[in-house]
Amino acid sequence: MAILEVTQRDAVRHLTMNSPERLNALSDEMLAALDETLAALAEDPACRVITIGGAGKAFCAGHDLRQMQAMRRSADGGAAGFADLFERCTKVMTRIQQMPQPVIAQVHGIATAAGCQLVATCDMAVAGEGTRFGVNGVNIGLFCSTPMVALSRNIAPKKAFEMLTTGDFIDAARAEALGLVNRVVPVDRLAAETGALADQIAGKLGVAVRIGKRAFYEQLAMNTADAYAHTGAVMVENLAHRDTEEGMQAFIEKRPPDWNQ
Amino acid sequence: MAILEVTQRDAVRHLTMNSPERLNALSDEMLAALDETLAALAEDPACRVITIGGAGKAFCAGHDLRQMQAMRRSADGGAAGFADLFERCTKVMTRIQQMPQPVIAQVHGIATAAGCQLVATCDMAVAGEGTRFGVNGVNIGLFCSTPMVALSRNIAPKKAFEMLTTGDFIDAARAEALGLVNRVVPVDRLAAETGALADQIAGKLGVAVRIGKRAFYEQLAMNTADAYAHTGAVMVENLAHRDTEEGMQAFIEKRPPDWNQ
Amino acid sequence: MAILEVTQRDAVRHLTMNSPERLNALSDEMLAALDETLAALAEDPACRVITIGGAGKAFCAGHDLRQMQAMRRSADGGAAGFADLFERCTKVMTRIQQMPQPVIAQVHGIATAAGCQLVATCDMAVAGEGTRFGVNGVNIGLFCSTPMVALSRNIAPKKAFEMLTTGDFIDAARAEALGLVNRVVPVDRLAAETGALADQIAGKLGVAVRIGKRAFYEQLAMNTADAYAHTGAVMVENLAHRDTEEGMQAFIEKRPPDWNQ
Repeated sequence: MAILEVTQRDAVRHLTMNSPERLNALSDEMLAALDETLAALAEDPACRVITIGGAGKAFCAGHDLRQMQAMRRSADGGAAGFADLFERCTKVMTRIQQMPQPVIAQVHGIATAAGCQLVATCDMAVAGEGTRFGVNGVNIGLFCSTPMVALSRNIAPKKAFEMLTTGDFIDAARAEALGLVNRVVPVDRLAAETGALADQIAGKLGVAVRIGKRAFYEQLAMNTADAYAHTGAVMVENLAHRDTEEGMQAFIEKRPPDWNQ
Repeated sequence: MAILEVTQRDAVRHLTMNSPERLNALSDEMLAALDETLAALAEDPACRVITIGGAGKAFCAGHDLRQMQAMRRSADGGAAGFADLFERCTKVMTRIQQMPQPVIAQVHGIATAAGCQLVATCDMAVAGEGTRFGVNGVNIGLFCSTPMVALSRNIAPKKAFEMLTTGDFIDAARAEALGLVNRVVPVDRLAAETGALADQIAGKLGVAVRIGKRAFYEQLAMNTADAYAHTGAVMVENLAHRDTEEGMQAFIEKRPPDWNQ
Repeated sequence: MAILEVTQRDAVRHLTMNSPERLNALSDEMLAALDETLAALAEDPACRVITIGGAGKAFCAGHDLRQMQAMRRSADGGAAGFADLFERCTKVMTRIQQMPQPVIAQVHGIATAAGCQLVATCDMAVAGEGTRFGVNGVNIGLFCSTPMVALSRNIAPKKAFEMLTTGDFIDAARAEALGLVNRVVPVDRLAAETGALADQIAGKLGVAVRIGKRAFYEQLAMNTADAYAHTGAVMVENLAHRDTEEGMQAFIEKRPPDWNQ
């Protein structure tokens, strides 16, 4: 079995992190597989939406502590290895938001430390009831500094600070209320509901979703004036597509669009 | 009937978008009327608070698709016309936050696409129960890229991303919970409750509200250190007003202030 | 009795603002005491967590209006004095987030104007049921421009704008829902629950909490790419500590860590 399995259903690709005995830790192998798989999917025009879940009891429990401790045996005590690890992890997280397709986390069991970062980084997240979320590195003396970059861009600062310094878990309903996940569903409906959300978005005009996702993160990083100047140009680009013209005309004529896509 | 009606009640001006057969679309005429009317009110010292609502079944359904499709007939396929349209729309949105007076959206029926952007842009919003909000351009192949500038500065990123890519509506209670509107009231109380909120603010010291609104958006765009340096100076400016001195003294003496304003 | 009492319980220091007859206003004396006390605690390795509460009926009612009115008697009408006051207040607020230790507000009664700013500025806040929060300077003609810097970095913009322009109070449950406080507890449990939260964090590895708090505010002010580059380096720094190595090893071996800290 591959450490990252890719299954296909129409235009949706589902990635299953498949290292259940390690709670799908973001090991060197898992990070490499995510990076390579996402890089390939970014170039695949048949792929419109990506979902990411985990095999076994947990979504993802963060970094692989055994591999990290092994890095300490190098002459520098692991410093170069650690720096490289966080660079590789950041590359994967950054790639997710730069993918042309929306990426949806399908979360169950636990999502801790970099696993919680992965949830926070995906464009959207659907969680099974009972899922627990934590950035609990502080409990072992390693503050979740990289995960907090993603977390603190999703939830209010005091709530993020509490999670980071107490190491406490929050449950799925709380995660939804705070903004960390979009929806909470019964566990036995998790795959179906995540798939339905993916299908819904896969049914939209692909070029519009691609244009929009890219612009979403671009404009978020700008001041409001620049954001409007940029997205105004993005709208003009979007409007130049034949299928957008047809979509608008179909709406006016109250008929379904005849899209080439 | 004018496309934008202005009614007056003491220091409050209520703007009614009055193109109900087009669901108060932000047509060329509507944008021009909003721009001119707001520009005039910005200079009117008798106006302390502005409320904006819509005639008919909807608050506002966004851009006027028929006018946009007509723009395509020009030699450039509409590119220059579209660019100009978003520039004019951005000008109105920007003007709202630059107005010296607070601007409150009074929202009923539906607020979609640029109509939802208008809600997100107003300083505050009161919604009638049953109002539905959407940035659903994706459904016709035109991602709501300009509306998302305002939306993503009001609600959590995953919630904004979901609305933008699914095109789903959210109801008024959900909009309130996410931060898109301030209050939800029964539809038959919408005008009264919005008016009461406007009256309450109109009863404050006008110069303090003007100073404060301007500083609100200025400091939001700054880092924390700059924001404190700026607002410290703003406080000193505020304190120099005779009516502020009187307001403070009256509070100390436990009596109503005797304001000139 | 000192205007600011410091009590000690293990590694937690509790500061009591003790000017109940003035509702613990941030007078010149109170600001000086907070500044000096926090500066000293920042250098105290035995102090791991700080909590701040107020004696009497209120947590803190903001600036001392009587002292401010007295400043007006100077030749410049108070301008230099006011500027100095906001600089001193900003210094205290800034210092709180720059402290190596987490600072938790223990809030009861009322927290208004700069008192609400103090709550918003602390890393976390626990509120007693019935506590009321307001930035109600607008009611006396002095818009809460400096408090809004902290408030608008904690809660959604429309909610902040409403509080600032209406001067209305919100209750503790609402403050929790908006993100202004972390937890609401019965008043007779306030000190105990705040203390328990402080104790919990004091029990973590001190160096990890210090590293993490500093990085929290640093990365919040950066764009995402810079934030990841920075926190990646922070993780490497954190990992170099002997106690962190031990914490990780202990976790792998499923035993309690043997920390020197």
